[in-house]
Amino acid sequence: MNNTSIKTRVVGVDVSVDNTTYAIVDVRGNILVKESFPTFDYPDISNFITKLSENIMMLAEANGGYDKIRSIGISVPSANYLTGSIENAGNLPWKGIIPLAAMLRDRMGLAVAVANDAHTTALGEKVFGSAHGKRDFIVVSLGHGGIGSCFFSNGEPHLGTNGFAGEIGHTCVVENGRQCTCGSRGCLEAYSSARGLKQNAEELLAATDVPSLLRDGGELTPERITECCEQGDAIAIEAMRLAGSILGHSLANYATVINPEAVIMTGSMIKAGKWLLDPMVKTFEESVFQNIRDRVKLLVSILDNNDRDVLGASALAWDVPEYSLFK
Amino acid sequence: MNNTSIKTRVVGVDVSVDNTTYAIVDVRGNILVKESFPTFDYPDISNFITKLSENIMMLAEANGGYDKIRSIGISVPSANYLTGSIENAGNLPWKGIIPLAAMLRDRMGLAVAVANDAHTTALGEKVFGSAHGKRDFIVVSLGHGGIGSCFFSNGEPHLGTNGFAGEIGHTCVVENGRQCTCGSRGCLEAYSSARGLKQNAEELLAATDVPSLLRDGGELTPERITECCEQGDAIAIEAMRLAGSILGHSLANYATVINPEAVIMTGSMIKAGKWLLDPMVKTFEESVFQNIRDRVKLLVSILDNNDRDVLGASALAWDVPEYSLFK
Repeated sequence: MNNTSIKTRVVGVDVSVDNTTYAIVDVRGNILVKESFPTFDYPDISNFITKLSENIMMLAEANGGYDKIRSIGISVPSANYLTGSIENAGNLPWKGIIPLAAMLRDRMGLAVAVANDAHTTALGEKVFGSAHGKRDFIVVSLGHGGIGSCFFSNGEPHLGTNGFAGEIGHTCVVENGRQCTCGSRGCLEAYSSARGLKQNAEELLAATDVPSLLRDGGELTPERITECCEQGDAIAIEAMRLAGSILGHSLANYATVINPEAVIMTGSMIKAGKWLLDPMVKTFEESVFQNIRDRVKLLVSILDNNDRDVLGASALAWDVPEYSLFK
Repeated sequence: MNNTSIKTRVVGVDVSVDNTTYAIVDVRGNILVKESFPTFDYPDISNFITKLSENIMMLAEANGGYDKIRSIGISVPSANYLTGSIENAGNLPWKGIIPLAAMLRDRMGLAVAVANDAHTTALGEKVFGSAHGKRDFIVVSLGHGGIGSCFFSNGEPHLGTNGFAGEIGHTCVVENGRQCTCGSRGCLEAYSSARGLKQNAEELLAATDVPSLLRDGGELTPERITECCEQGDAIAIEAMRLAGSILGHSLANYATVINPEAVIMTGSMIKAGKWLLDPMVKTFEESVFQNIRDRVKLLVSILDNNDRDVLGASALAWDVPEYSLFK
């Protein structure tokens, strides 16, 4: 390796259903430059790899040089860090097993690490956010798509033997409960994700004729339901209370087996604030094992929602050994 | 250190409510000699330390010499590996915080490690038993006293930030369910431990007048209920089915967040065999996250029940650095 080119930067890539975002990030988590393109414009994985690699190269050349880039970290749903592949992603255009890390590494001549969004989110919190300095912690993402989580054990991410650990969204919270998209019934996601919250509201609206701002036929998004909570709407408040309460119960069981220093909440639904979080905290403290009651910090992520994913991906990039043709 | 005395043996100690058992064990897990005395004969911790240290010294001298002993590992309920102390044990004679490792180390001049029984059981399974060669696994102990567990993450025991991880017995499985000894309601232990099984049978007997061998006023122990299952007793079978089914549900949620290679069942209640385990496996496979369904090995410990605890404690003894006055 040429010592005149010390590689002080990495690229963090976030592949989401809507957009693929890529940023050049330094060791301290400063995002130097960030761009994105629509993921679904590239339904063929080869075209996607071409587009992504060319864009990263152009961005790097225009911002200090490609030779400053050490490695690439990619956050993508249904990715398996252990294999470097996307595995049967439900919401992405590419089906089956996609060896994304190997494909991009071969194209770019850089080391590439791939991990699912729960893993990179937790890593981002550890390196740059609310989990900094912590060894045993849980990060829970309440996104529109579902509920993901990743926990760290002894300072390392716990991925599980097949890379599927942390699926708190698919633990059963109500026996023979609501149908979940995973095929099972009564999963946490069916009650406390954006989709679950919507169904909470729908069922409450159908069960009574209590007046509600939510009866105007508009879409039952978390943002809208939160607005109605702010205006004192009883149905909206109860829909949120139910989501928060079931979430708190589920996280209490999670914390009882993990005994984490903290549970860090992240994702778009957190914007619901106290309407979701107060019932969550109440149920959590009531249900968690008595020896750790009042000892688990319930925190909200301090990272900017817009930067979280590329920051986590950039932290992942440092986890992979630098690429060398000679090794 | 004198090289003429290579220390090839450790002492494994199991402190249980009934007996304190101590054994000299070699590196391959061969128990060379084993003895015990009743724990409750020594309600004062100083007397207990004196008794235990003298007995270990005598046993070692009579079996190859005290200078062959490298270190001591102790398995004890409510012990905290991180502090080396017994912390507020409910069932032992010594109350409050007992710095057991330091007390015994100072008396014996040997390194001492202390851990709770769930931790040493899991370690024993990893070093000598069904978890050998596994990095991510769960060990669940179904004992008379309750339900303990410990899981390994990336090859290391996950103890949690306060040393209280693995308390699957105190995860809530029935909202507002039965009163548990921990103060909460609806804990797994209240349904699937020996105590829970007894209550299952009592409630079933009270709810119907179906004839049952269990109506003769005898004690409702797991052994007795298993015998009645063998004789086709419907109440006994249903009491076991309920315990197994709730256990399977709870372990499925546990496995969904851990994604272990295996869940290893141990403890005295396992002797109930198919009456408990068949409903457990059925509910487990129905409830576990679909991506890991049929991928988690459900195993029974291969270690002898009489040796398990001292073997696990002996494995723990190797985890602590050798004691030296000069370090």
